Amino acid sequence: MPPSPSGDLEMMRVALDLASKAKGATFPNPAVGAVLVKNGAIVGRGATDRCGGPHAEKRAIAQAGTAARGATLYVTLEPCCHFGRTPPCTDAIVAAGIARVVASVKDPNPLVSGKGLARLRRAGIGVSCGLLEAEARRLNEDHFWSIVHGTPWVSLKLAMTWDGRIADARGASKWITSEQTRRFVHGVRRQHAGIAVGGATARADDPELTVRLVRGACPVRFVFSSTRPIPRVGRLAATAGRIRTVRVIDGGVGPSMRIDGSGIEMWQTGSKTRLAGMRTFLRMAHAEGITGILFEGGARMASFLMEHRLVNRLYLCYGNKIVGAGLDALTFARGLPIDACVSLDQPQVAVLGDNVVVTGIPLWRR
Amino acid sequence: MPPSPSGDLEMMRVALDLASKAKGATFPNPAVGAVLVKNGAIVGRGATDRCGGPHAEKRAIAQAGTAARGATLYVTLEPCCHFGRTPPCTDAIVAAGIARVVASVKDPNPLVSGKGLARLRRAGIGVSCGLLEAEARRLNEDHFWSIVHGTPWVSLKLAMTWDGRIADARGASKWITSEQTRRFVHGVRRQHAGIAVGGATARADDPELTVRLVRGACPVRFVFSSTRPIPRVGRLAATAGRIRTVRVIDGGVGPSMRIDGSGIEMWQTGSKTRLAGMRTFLRMAHAEGITGILFEGGARMASFLMEHRLVNRLYLCYGNKIVGAGLDALTFARGLPIDACVSLDQPQVAVLGDNVVVTGIPLWRR
Repeated sequence: MPPSPSGDLEMMRVALDLASKAKGATFPNPAVGAVLVKNGAIVGRGATDRCGGPHAEKRAIAQAGTAARGATLYVTLEPCCHFGRTPPCTDAIVAAGIARVVASVKDPNPLVSGKGLARLRRAGIGVSCGLLEAEARRLNEDHFWSIVHGTPWVSLKLAMTWDGRIADARGASKWITSEQTRRFVHGVRRQHAGIAVGGATARADDPELTVRLVRGACPVRFVFSSTRPIPRVGRLAATAGRIRTVRVIDGGVGPSMRIDGSGIEMWQTGSKTRLAGMRTFLRMAHAEGITGILFEGGARMASFLMEHRLVNRLYLCYGNKIVGAGLDALTFARGLPIDACVSLDQPQVAVLGDNVVVTGIPLWRR
Repeated sequence: MPPSPSGDLEMMRVALDLASKAKGATFPNPAVGAVLVKNGAIVGRGATDRCGGPHAEKRAIAQAGTAARGATLYVTLEPCCHFGRTPPCTDAIVAAGIARVVASVKDPNPLVSGKGLARLRRAGIGVSCGLLEAEARRLNEDHFWSIVHGTPWVSLKLAMTWDGRIADARGASKWITSEQTRRFVHGVRRQHAGIAVGGATARADDPELTVRLVRGACPVRFVFSSTRPIPRVGRLAATAGRIRTVRVIDGGVGPSMRIDGSGIEMWQTGSKTRLAGMRTFLRMAHAEGITGILFEGGARMASFLMEHRLVNRLYLCYGNKIVGAGLDALTFARGLPIDACVSLDQPQVAVLGDNVVVTGIPLWRR
């Protein structure tokens, strides 16, 4: 990537900000932001619309009108060059007479993957790629992962005390973290197409699993509960009419999906073991367009996912509390030795008042 | 406190920096910094010398010479007005013709406690107190606590994994935290007159318990080991000739101190229970001029201190590791409920590369 003028950086930040605001409302599409700049002034802005709506580039071009001619387009993802739900963006860019395109990152979608940029270059447009690439990748890490691996990006959130407990000795966990941290977590929820808990957590905590403390759409809610149904009286059942809610169970003869009268779906994995069941579930979720799932508990689910290396990103939320006994956040059947344990790849730390949130991608040794 | 000119703040920061550099080398005295300023220029600097040497104010005055006349003195602690190991600083300040004194905090020593400032005011010197008071208190929190309570300030350090373990399932703990964090801990050690571990930790880890990764004097080393002596072959025994080393044991007819041929002291508390023994030990340490002790492990010692509310400051050091099983950092015989547990008063968070250190003063409910 050739060095970019500092104005490029600034404009790409505007585009990323647009993308970031759209995140959560575009599933299964990635959230993309686009800015059109002419003579140093922004003449058009756009972000991905809901699935099936116009892409970010087209919205920016529409806003700019004739000012798009000779302008520079900043876009957080390589423009598409294939007919998906909408016609190719590359055609619109060429037709608008845009002179230069600065993209953050190549689209990992094998239908695009460099072909979009190549198409623009062939049309005589100046093209560069890689500006703020890490940020752009992070924003759509679910999309990037799922399109390559055929399985959703799995995030795991743990809310724990300074001494590593997610509940006190009596099982109480409300509230370990502060309201500020819980708001942060709602912001994380918003960025996931799905959210999941174990059945015990669903029964004990009666969670609503919606996005409330920040603006945003609600993810699809999954409850893993092979033995007992989702309680008929509770927040999940009460809101199942307006928010897609799925009970996941193992067993049966093969993967199947059905829906009951209360609006709660039942996905049966057809698997006998928990691990096989989880893998089947992830494939089923992918087939339903779920690009990423945030697992929020409880301890057994968290430990299971970590032990089987199914976690793509960890969110460790520490509340300002010490209980000295209770439920350990993570308990592996076989503990890892200190010199061959899991670490986080370049963890990011957010200090939220008297709470701390650490996030990173788990790295397993061996 | 009346508002101070911004120049005052800047000069007090210089004084605090001088005090901070002296910390660890002035026990049992607090570390104090002083700056003399005339016509906007620094004409003298001083910090507390080793015990018995001149105080910071006198060193700054000596350095300034005749320039001290009419100058402003910035000092991180109220100047003393009593004959201790050295004559009163207030006399030297008056004699030097200093026009104005800006102090950070009143000396909690009942022999001073406002009398020093009053003495200066009576001499016609302009006096204010309270600038950067929180920082000045923090630097000498051991001194402030011990002079009022007659017992050392107790700090507790825990080095743990993200999941709250201080050792893996096989007991290994080297190294949970990074070298950068261990260097930070050596800086914390330097600020304590004493450092302590349990006997099991002394035997398992063979620690040296010295200040190595930063410059500074070594604290007195305490090993709590009623049942077994400090190993004859090991780093503690090997360095006992040059660094004061104490084995603490319970039992006996009353508090006693003796020293063996290898140079290791033996303090016997005369107490039958662990808690009574610890309380006696703390009084003995205070009588020996130990203003603060950093406890560094292991898990049993840490839990014991926390359960009995003996900890004044916690240092929670998180290494970038997850082990999933092992030794919990804290295990209380009776866990605390989430709504009545320990929290930290305004915790401070330091992000050290991929490690996090949280420090604060424990607040117990009820």
